[in-house]
Amino acid sequence: MKVLENYMSKETDLVKQMEQLAKKAKAASLALATISDANKNDFLEQLADALEKNRSAILEANAKDVEMGESLAIGKQMVSRLALDDAKIDAIIDGVKDIRALKDPVGEILELIKRPNQLAIQKVRVPIGVVAVIYESRPNVTIDCAALCVKAGNAVILRGGREAFNTNKILAKAVEEAIESSGLPEGAVQMVPTVNREAIKTLLKLNRYIDCVIPRGGEALIEFVIEESKIPVIKHSKGVCSIYIDKDADLDMAESILINAKCQNPAVCNAAENLFIHKNIAPKALPRLAQALHEKGVELRLDGVCEGIILCNDINIPLHPATEMDFHTEYLDLILSVKIVSSVEDAIRAVNTYGSGHSDAIVTEDEEAAQKFLKSVDSAAVYWNASTRFTDGNQFGFGAEIGISTDKLHARGPMGIRDLCTYKYVIRGNGQVRE
Amino acid sequence: MKVLENYMSKETDLVKQMEQLAKKAKAASLALATISDANKNDFLEQLADALEKNRSAILEANAKDVEMGESLAIGKQMVSRLALDDAKIDAIIDGVKDIRALKDPVGEILELIKRPNQLAIQKVRVPIGVVAVIYESRPNVTIDCAALCVKAGNAVILRGGREAFNTNKILAKAVEEAIESSGLPEGAVQMVPTVNREAIKTLLKLNRYIDCVIPRGGEALIEFVIEESKIPVIKHSKGVCSIYIDKDADLDMAESILINAKCQNPAVCNAAENLFIHKNIAPKALPRLAQALHEKGVELRLDGVCEGIILCNDINIPLHPATEMDFHTEYLDLILSVKIVSSVEDAIRAVNTYGSGHSDAIVTEDEEAAQKFLKSVDSAAVYWNASTRFTDGNQFGFGAEIGISTDKLHARGPMGIRDLCTYKYVIRGNGQVRE
Repeated sequence: MKVLENYMSKETDLVKQMEQLAKKAKAASLALATISDANKNDFLEQLADALEKNRSAILEANAKDVEMGESLAIGKQMVSRLALDDAKIDAIIDGVKDIRALKDPVGEILELIKRPNQLAIQKVRVPIGVVAVIYESRPNVTIDCAALCVKAGNAVILRGGREAFNTNKILAKAVEEAIESSGLPEGAVQMVPTVNREAIKTLLKLNRYIDCVIPRGGEALIEFVIEESKIPVIKHSKGVCSIYIDKDADLDMAESILINAKCQNPAVCNAAENLFIHKNIAPKALPRLAQALHEKGVELRLDGVCEGIILCNDINIPLHPATEMDFHTEYLDLILSVKIVSSVEDAIRAVNTYGSGHSDAIVTEDEEAAQKFLKSVDSAAVYWNASTRFTDGNQFGFGAEIGISTDKLHARGPMGIRDLCTYKYVIRGNGQVRE
Repeated sequence: MKVLENYMSKETDLVKQMEQLAKKAKAASLALATISDANKNDFLEQLADALEKNRSAILEANAKDVEMGESLAIGKQMVSRLALDDAKIDAIIDGVKDIRALKDPVGEILELIKRPNQLAIQKVRVPIGVVAVIYESRPNVTIDCAALCVKAGNAVILRGGREAFNTNKILAKAVEEAIESSGLPEGAVQMVPTVNREAIKTLLKLNRYIDCVIPRGGEALIEFVIEESKIPVIKHSKGVCSIYIDKDADLDMAESILINAKCQNPAVCNAAENLFIHKNIAPKALPRLAQALHEKGVELRLDGVCEGIILCNDINIPLHPATEMDFHTEYLDLILSVKIVSSVEDAIRAVNTYGSGHSDAIVTEDEEAAQKFLKSVDSAAVYWNASTRFTDGNQFGFGAEIGISTDKLHARGPMGIRDLCTYKYVIRGNGQVRE
């Protein structure tokens, strides 16, 4: 009985604590919406300084997290995402300075409508309000998100991975110092102060206070957030990106784009996972491409037709048959699924069926085929004769990004600072009433 | 055991049926995304004709629904929303023709970015894909939503209220005729063919196929959709709209705006529910406004200060004290909550605390106070010296609207045909790869 009471009171405490946090964020957001760009920039300058000042404490805390991660065997990839060094801290600080240099997105007039009754309607860009970001191991996300959200005039609630808890605690301290010295409202940036997963569940119900949730991480995390959230979610989910090599492709260009899209950084969401080749060019293209990919260490998973072509050409590479599931898989590794298609329409169907709507490319010299592909592929970014690796806020010229949205509502593709805003209508009249 | 088996198989049937419907919509959406405006307009013309041709069948079916509604005592307001007559059918047909005349929003280039590496990035407006609309009694919503969604290139799944089931069945038949005769893909517009609420629950999990859900209706419906949905939701929720009469208001204008916002059509979401008056003008303004509102049949719910002012002025109107809850309430009726505030900041706080972020107005001749209010009130539409009743797609010049969004993401305020679209990035290169 005693135990149950304790448990119940802890549960209630957690709910209360999360409500307090969300309420504080909401109050801060109303103040943040109207402060000057100079004030926001002052915060970012103080933040860069505070990170510098706390550099050794950050590295110390991070070493503790890394040691813990290794002892818990969380996996090499996760440890490498988690680990900070001086160069990575430099990059985080430079990131803050870059965000400081961005144009303030708030207050821009997006549209001006003058009505016959003389009402003047302005569509004005304004902050969203309160944004919650739920993410995994990378501690740089903590600072990126804090800086981007505040620059866009939002209050932000951050919930990092439990494996980065110590690092994030020191980073939060640096943020707090910057908030205090720049006079920003107290709840502008808050970290969820517990690794208890129930805290996220509670937060995700608080749609009275929180306007938007951005989950960044693996599929399990995103599925969890979608399942639990009553707050609108902008997913930053997986990228199953495809390259289609058309019958009229320039083969040198095709090879260069394919190698770049697959190998330049295979661990990211805009790397290619699928290759579709037109049957008319496949006998010539595939042996060459397979050889080049094999030399780069890429494992190929092939459909039957591909296998036949490889067998005819006496190329010494291992043959892995592709399953249907392979074409739906985000490998994030040096693996590529390959299928032969019989037309551009067939390629479009394959991309729309297997892809995740992230980034897809056609390589061709035939403008008609290209136009068809660009129009019919239902993805955030569709390329003609360029690598899918360009889907990125910096590469698009937006500056820093909070991630790449795989949703269709509000923001699609690279989500920059403007996408951390909404709009409102400001209407000026001289006594107009509705008839 | 037999019963359980039957039940189980029915459950499974429902899930399968909803999956089929959603899959069909998804397939249709890919085709709809690339068809011509002429084809979409042909559909709309055929739809107007089919409604005309089925006019008597629609009225007959509607009479059945109304009779059923009356016998089930669903309430006067609901019956009046449900009931059709010739004039209402004329309005529905005219609505379709108006939507036909709108400019095709698909394909518009929203932004053109030329990068230093010569990549040409276009941000192009494209359809969302599959939109589901869940609504209550009004049968006109069925046709409005079908017409708007198709014009924007979306496939749509409609789930009307059970009280309009017979009417919607005939309307769906007219839509099907128009789809067939205009050669639109088969799943372009589909009605959920059951009133079983489990069907909605099933639909709301199908985020593989459905891109967006729009609930239109009472709070219970919207709460249910938010709770159950894994698909992004754009809420069309309640409007608790406020009028703030500043110390520097023109009192003739204030009265005219207030009477319009409260009385011209009290049953709609952009009607005023709260009145805040600056204390310096209240002794002069309130007696006059209270008298005018009383004459229009408006019941006033007053805070203590208001009551004092009324008592001092020997006006013969009933005194209803306002509760805290009253200021949060969307009456949709001739009732108004009134509170005295002591500054424009105080008024802003009141609006942001009690309002629902829909539409709010300040009446003042003081530009500084107006600017502060316009900037700090966190609502979809903020007015200076005009009635809140203008928050409407037609009044804003967007043409027909699918509703008024009370969400901040994607669409805020009147949601016209352009808001039924998303965008994609179309990137043209000549072999660019990422360094």
